[in-house]
Amino acid sequence: MAHIELGNDEPGIRGLMRYRPLTAGPLSDLAETLLRADNSLTRGERELIAATVSRGNECTFCGNFHATIAAVELGVEDLTEAPRTPKLTALLAIADKVRVSGQKVLAEDVAAAREAGATDEEIHDTVLIAAAFCIYNRYVDGLGTWASPTQADYLPSAQHVSVVGYQNVG
Amino acid sequence: MAHIELGNDEPGIRGLMRYRPLTAGPLSDLAETLLRADNSLTRGERELIAATVSRGNECTFCGNFHATIAAVELGVEDLTEAPRTPKLTALLAIADKVRVSGQKVLAEDVAAAREAGATDEEIHDTVLIAAAFCIYNRYVDGLGTWASPTQADYLPSAQHVSVVGYQNVG
Repeated sequence: MAHIELGNDEPGIRGLMRYRPLTAGPLSDLAETLLRADNSLTRGERELIAATVSRGNECTFCGNFHATIAAVELGVEDLTEAPRTPKLTALLAIADKVRVSGQKVLAEDVAAAREAGATDEEIHDTVLIAAAFCIYNRYVDGLGTWASPTQADYLPSAQHVSVVGYQNVG
Repeated sequence: MAHIELGNDEPGIRGLMRYRPLTAGPLSDLAETLLRADNSLTRGERELIAATVSRGNECTFCGNFHATIAAVELGVEDLTEAPRTPKLTALLAIADKVRVSGQKVLAEDVAAAREAGATDEEIHDTVLIAAAFCIYNRYVDGLGTWASPTQADYLPSAQHVSVVGYQNVG
């Protein structure tokens, strides 16, 4: 039961987006741009950053949803099987610091990512994806929306997003 | 000196937006929708929520910038002179909890805001504005952008935003 009367039974951010179409537009556009637009980071890598931040923030809906999309995009059953290059490992470390606070990111974290092969644009996008999930996680939980604790429940919508994107969901 | 090579000398989020126009679009649209679109919360009240969250996150650029816009919109010299209705006080309390974590917001916080006269839509928008500044603050600081510590330096761009909005800045 959400903190406000949504007038629909959709879980997580889906119920909020249906409740307030005015703000759903820019939020979907942001997700589509960050997670699916052309990028030297694969969609799977970007979803893994989103899932890692959401799990760190203990957001049940976003954690399960983006972990499922990451697995779909990476073609693995379980994210523990996902290949982690040194570059992705360094970017995930930056993302986890951004999750706590922007000020935690040090020049040496950025230098380590560069040394592992990350470009400035990839470092930029990692920071922005991690920051973006600090909005989605807080939005979903700050309004007390419902979310299934069972990851398998997220597979149909994860597969749907993988095909049609974020702008056509909700 | 930012953590990445931006190719421009603009401070805070302005330098980042000029660096990466692809992501600047949805970020500006989100700010415009949350802070300036028609709403029963005034622009000044919404900017005060943005400034309060940014100050709580110790983000120099966003804290100074949005405090200045809030003062311009509210027609006060200093934000301590800004009128704080019981409704705004209750909404700011929710915003400050969202800043820390969405899970901190309790049904009783929402009930207190409702009792002070807040509508469900106003509660929704407060949560989303507070969450949104958890992205802007982390974006600006996670990439180590420069920001003036002097609030008076923000007045020209605050007055500019107050007239033309967020989509025409950067």
